Amino acid sequence: MAARIEFFWEPSSPYTYIASTQIEALAQRAGAQLAWKPMLLGKVFEATGNRMNIAVPAKARYMFSDLELLARHYRIPLKRPEVFPVNSVAVARAALAAPESQQPAFAKALLRAYWGEGRDTGQPDEIRRVAASTGLDGDAVLAGTQQQGVKDRLRSNTEEAIARGVFGAPTFFVGEQMFWGCDRLDLMEEFLAGKLAAAAGA
Amino acid sequence: MAARIEFFWEPSSPYTYIASTQIEALAQRAGAQLAWKPMLLGKVFEATGNRMNIAVPAKARYMFSDLELLARHYRIPLKRPEVFPVNSVAVARAALAAPESQQPAFAKALLRAYWGEGRDTGQPDEIRRVAASTGLDGDAVLAGTQQQGVKDRLRSNTEEAIARGVFGAPTFFVGEQMFWGCDRLDLMEEFLAGKLAAAAGA
Repeated sequence: MAARIEFFWEPSSPYTYIASTQIEALAQRAGAQLAWKPMLLGKVFEATGNRMNIAVPAKARYMFSDLELLARHYRIPLKRPEVFPVNSVAVARAALAAPESQQPAFAKALLRAYWGEGRDTGQPDEIRRVAASTGLDGDAVLAGTQQQGVKDRLRSNTEEAIARGVFGAPTFFVGEQMFWGCDRLDLMEEFLAGKLAAAAGA
Repeated sequence: MAARIEFFWEPSSPYTYIASTQIEALAQRAGAQLAWKPMLLGKVFEATGNRMNIAVPAKARYMFSDLELLARHYRIPLKRPEVFPVNSVAVARAALAAPESQQPAFAKALLRAYWGEGRDTGQPDEIRRVAASTGLDGDAVLAGTQQQGVKDRLRSNTEEAIARGVFGAPTFFVGEQMFWGCDRLDLMEEFLAGKLAAAAGA
């Protein structure tokens, strides 16, 4: 049976954006299925007592320089958004309102529009534009964000994340093994390749 | 002129331990000088408003599983210390009380005794043992921890770290570029190799 990676992602998280540019190729190399699960990090922080990076000013000052180096490493665009955090509820619901097969591409495009291009993807007009660029009907997506099923799905993703020990974003699961942060992608790939089994007697 | 890496380290920090097992080889590959600078993370947290990982229970639960996978990745020993955090003041002063040329080896041995073997390196007897294993006179080291110069050096390292924007451990500087975390070692190595320069026009 193919391994499965669950990718809990949050629209406002820059490290989620970075991970989103790498995770599909990683899953392909590992022969793993990939499930994109938007969640609301604000609710996760409320439940766990964790905080945004920018709650610590020194961390906030470091973060953008760190992101710039990571963006150069991965050769991906990066632009500081004018609006931060984005309206995560609007973006995450939009991502879940797309037809399921198109959700990964749409999620990736939403993250790239926000952190790669600095666009305020919490606004309906931007959601329409990103939808159109992904071949989706923006009005249908926006209508979908009002559906109870979409709202419930976002709530249940977030509750599931909290119940499984998530405290930040991005967070990945391979089975019950959790990986937090875009800086754990390499470690997760090693794990998927079976290279991190405990030594005998350890 | 050779590049220089400044390594701000804290005795209680498990990610500092992991970094300490890799940083010398990295510096050698990069042709960089390496300066080990013990600091007191407690004071850094007071000054910055940052907190220990274990202040968030979900983060604490994740941390040890993360450390285990990192230890397997790097093939280094890992043992959960019985006493946490260690008496960082005692350990950091001991590290600074050794003759300067032996401080890196002693620092490394202290971190390994604590996070690799779980020993309470804040105790004088353990400091003596680790000193002896590094070819140092344990009594001389312990006597040195009471010298004003050693105490002042630890205080000034910590103040310098705070002034330069440090908020956690390990933290490295290459010139004024800061790198936080053992998960930025690869990025720092790329930076030292000149591979992360800003693209023209970026």
